[in-house]
Amino acid sequence: MNNQNWSDLMFLRESWYVAAWGVDLAEAGGILAKTIAGEPIVIWRDADGGLHAMEDRCPHRHAPLSRGRVEGNRLRCMYHGMTFNADGRCQSMPLLDTPPNVAVRTYPVVEKYDWLWIWMGDACKADQSLIPAAHGISNPGRPMRHNSIEYEAHYQLVHDNLCDLSHVDFLHATTLQPATGANWSETAPRIQSKDRAVRFERWFEEAQLPGDPTQRVDVWNSYEFAVPGIFIMYGARFPAGTARACNRKEPVGIAPIVENIEQQAVTPISATHTAYHYATGLVGSTDEMTARLAQRMDVIMAAFVEDRDMIEAQQRIWNLTPANKKTLFLPQDKGPFMMRRMMEKFIASE
Amino acid sequence: MNNQNWSDLMFLRESWYVAAWGVDLAEAGGILAKTIAGEPIVIWRDADGGLHAMEDRCPHRHAPLSRGRVEGNRLRCMYHGMTFNADGRCQSMPLLDTPPNVAVRTYPVVEKYDWLWIWMGDACKADQSLIPAAHGISNPGRPMRHNSIEYEAHYQLVHDNLCDLSHVDFLHATTLQPATGANWSETAPRIQSKDRAVRFERWFEEAQLPGDPTQRVDVWNSYEFAVPGIFIMYGARFPAGTARACNRKEPVGIAPIVENIEQQAVTPISATHTAYHYATGLVGSTDEMTARLAQRMDVIMAAFVEDRDMIEAQQRIWNLTPANKKTLFLPQDKGPFMMRRMMEKFIASE
Amino acid sequence: MNNQNWSDLMFLRESWYVAAWGVDLAEAGGILAKTIAGEPIVIWRDADGGLHAMEDRCPHRHAPLSRGRVEGNRLRCMYHGMTFNADGRCQSMPLLDTPPNVAVRTYPVVEKYDWLWIWMGDACKADQSLIPAAHGISNPGRPMRHNSIEYEAHYQLVHDNLCDLSHVDFLHATTLQPATGANWSETAPRIQSKDRAVRFERWFEEAQLPGDPTQRVDVWNSYEFAVPGIFIMYGARFPAGTARACNRKEPVGIAPIVENIEQQAVTPISATHTAYHYATGLVGSTDEMTARLAQRMDVIMAAFVEDRDMIEAQQRIWNLTPANKKTLFLPQDKGPFMMRRMMEKFIASE
Repeated sequence: MNNQNWSDLMFLRESWYVAAWGVDLAEAGGILAKTIAGEPIVIWRDADGGLHAMEDRCPHRHAPLSRGRVEGNRLRCMYHGMTFNADGRCQSMPLLDTPPNVAVRTYPVVEKYDWLWIWMGDACKADQSLIPAAHGISNPGRPMRHNSIEYEAHYQLVHDNLCDLSHVDFLHATTLQPATGANWSETAPRIQSKDRAVRFERWFEEAQLPGDPTQRVDVWNSYEFAVPGIFIMYGARFPAGTARACNRKEPVGIAPIVENIEQQAVTPISATHTAYHYATGLVGSTDEMTARLAQRMDVIMAAFVEDRDMIEAQQRIWNLTPANKKTLFLPQDKGPFMMRRMMEKFIASE
Repeated sequence: MNNQNWSDLMFLRESWYVAAWGVDLAEAGGILAKTIAGEPIVIWRDADGGLHAMEDRCPHRHAPLSRGRVEGNRLRCMYHGMTFNADGRCQSMPLLDTPPNVAVRTYPVVEKYDWLWIWMGDACKADQSLIPAAHGISNPGRPMRHNSIEYEAHYQLVHDNLCDLSHVDFLHATTLQPATGANWSETAPRIQSKDRAVRFERWFEEAQLPGDPTQRVDVWNSYEFAVPGIFIMYGARFPAGTARACNRKEPVGIAPIVENIEQQAVTPISATHTAYHYATGLVGSTDEMTARLAQRMDVIMAAFVEDRDMIEAQQRIWNLTPANKKTLFLPQDKGPFMMRRMMEKFIASE
Repeated sequence: MNNQNWSDLMFLRESWYVAAWGVDLAEAGGILAKTIAGEPIVIWRDADGGLHAMEDRCPHRHAPLSRGRVEGNRLRCMYHGMTFNADGRCQSMPLLDTPPNVAVRTYPVVEKYDWLWIWMGDACKADQSLIPAAHGISNPGRPMRHNSIEYEAHYQLVHDNLCDLSHVDFLHATTLQPATGANWSETAPRIQSKDRAVRFERWFEEAQLPGDPTQRVDVWNSYEFAVPGIFIMYGARFPAGTARACNRKEPVGIAPIVENIEQQAVTPISATHTAYHYATGLVGSTDEMTARLAQRMDVIMAAFVEDRDMIEAQQRIWNLTPANKKTLFLPQDKGPFMMRRMMEKFIASE
């Protein structure tokens, strides 16, 4: 990135990052290679189901351990055969009676809300209470559909995208906008800063009901975007008039017509690539809900291709742009700006 | 480029560049993204047919306007919805009563000779009389076939190629050479410098008539290579003896057997990539001419693949070559050398 | 490469490099382009069969001569027509009565053991006796199968691979290991330094006979890895007990059950790419041998894909690794270490 707005932005280290969906590890056969914030990491499960994350680099010759083999509660490098305990220490090496006194770095890792979270900073500070609450995709009664994509762009551009949903009316004019029936670009959210997140909430009053233009509903939308890139959204439709009845505050104790939940994570791979893990759900588990959820997932996947195409094109423009070229600060940018400041504050504190 | 001959060569700014064929814009739906000399540009037509070129970078968040939408006489950025008038000024932004006082740079743009020309320098100096005369590809009576290709090479290597056609006998030994029947490498052109172009002309006397080796003709060939890379050629076949009758000067007032016209433009995309827009025509509009023109276009397209393969390979050799490695200056290099000096002179004057 | 172990390693120049298999030149029509240690080279055969290697860069405009044409005992550049004698001197140029006084660099080149060898250093020092002895792939009675692949990795990683075959038990656990029946990782070779090579030899006693787990054989394995990357191996199976009868020394005058020979060469293309030319053979020329050789080649080709996948992944890890990150020195690394020291010594002496 060659712009003053984030050229100095390094990666936040003291934070839990979403490395993958929990099911990704099983699908990969129990060993998964991920690069997070420039660091190569191997995630693996031992024979007892124990979950581990380590530096993906054998101390012998820097071969990737992710091409290794799980043997009981150890991981073997399949280049020259060194084995490692789950604490990262070398446990054996062919030809040697005593293993060399070396270890790979381990990373705190935990499966929560169906994501694999890795703490990239000092392991002593890996407080699980810092993991932001998410929905989890396998709750009975509120199943979610999930997927992952990759951007050839800096993570900051993806953060910006998620902290300013006014773009739904334009970039997603034929996908998400009609699916929501809301006027995203003319309805500014209330934005407030929390300890490790920025919270957005708004009512779309008299919004169109998709599929039935004669009906109107009030739509509540709230989400938090938490450090280092966790997007947790809740939406609900109510009979028109509910917003006013609530004084435009959060609806509490009022039964919605339908509720949707979103769970997304932005994880930097490197300065030029970013991973994106997302899921969507509708509360309720009837067959009709399941069919609507499948439709909804199709719309979201189409919309995220729109996001990716735009963000990657935007990145290419940034790459052609002199570093001293300014951008604007408009009301729409309040959310992205607050999030960027929060990230910078945490990064600066390291 | 890591060679002393052009390592210091920057792009010429104060000049009209061919961005595309006019029909390309319509085929792209009225919005076209082009990078010229490292600058991203969006070319678009408003609802009244007005032609515009602008910086392809929204001042808000640097999104490409070429992914936008034409709305009447405005262009809307389809990321967050900012609209722009044709003069580049922001006209509206969602949520704002008054648009922010910003503008994107506009570029003078004009359609002429069926090309879209963009002035990359100071707009005040965009004098249309500086556009070199070309044939135009849609003249009744002399229709042309056209195409565009891209080189992974510095534009200078393409200029060199066009200013020394001695290579036709070797690189195009099975394509253009037999199609012309001329001895390009042993017949040096007269070369003269003009204000903004280098002019090449020569007679090929007693040239072979393609398809009939028993017949001989005199072939006149002249072309100008104008700043910043416009190649306009005229060729004509006459009965043998015409060259001598003309004292080897330009044939004036003598009816040729057949005439061909070429219109080509070299436009730098970046320091490593170059666009090439070309067309060929035969004067006359009979059905037989049309069939011969299709054949001619096939030969030319094959020849330009030969050019591209050679020039890209040449570029890779340059990339492996120490900067202090010298090249030769031979009689063949007079044209390329004069053109390079002319470009350097104009660039230096900026 | 960004590691202290070889970041300073330049290419060795004063050495014979394997450019290609001899048959590659014929298959390419008599002109072959190769980049060796960053230098572009054209290898060509004249009309009399004479073998030549030259700088692949025309002194006129740096066009690659490998896109040229052989004309008798000359090579013509097919861009502008300059011709060169086999001694590299320009012989003719269109338009010129006297050719310009220029020449391309020539490289000593020789075909030996079915490889084309090129001396990359000072031609005066190109002593053919420095070419390490290989088997040759076209000996009647011991035919070999051959192939070439390319690594996107520094050559040093390929050298390391070949100088520590303990990896056969792990990386090739389902290919080469069962094919050899030997315990590579627990049987350390005797290693000794020679003038321009490192020699490895060992007995695998009581090794499994592939296909018949009830039988045991003694397997002799020896190879030399010669500067700048020539790997010549000899293996033989003997009745169990032979190793002991030989005092674990090289078996001399004892008839083996079967013998295999390997001939491989590592040639750096650039700092990031490496060529690998390899062949395998079984001594004997019966039909049964031929069938077994085809099977053996299949196993070896599968194993070399395993090597390439691992080495390229290892390179990517190196690229993500800070320069001051250390690797280990274990008993397994004695061979790679000796070879690296030998290369460094020769490079330093230049």
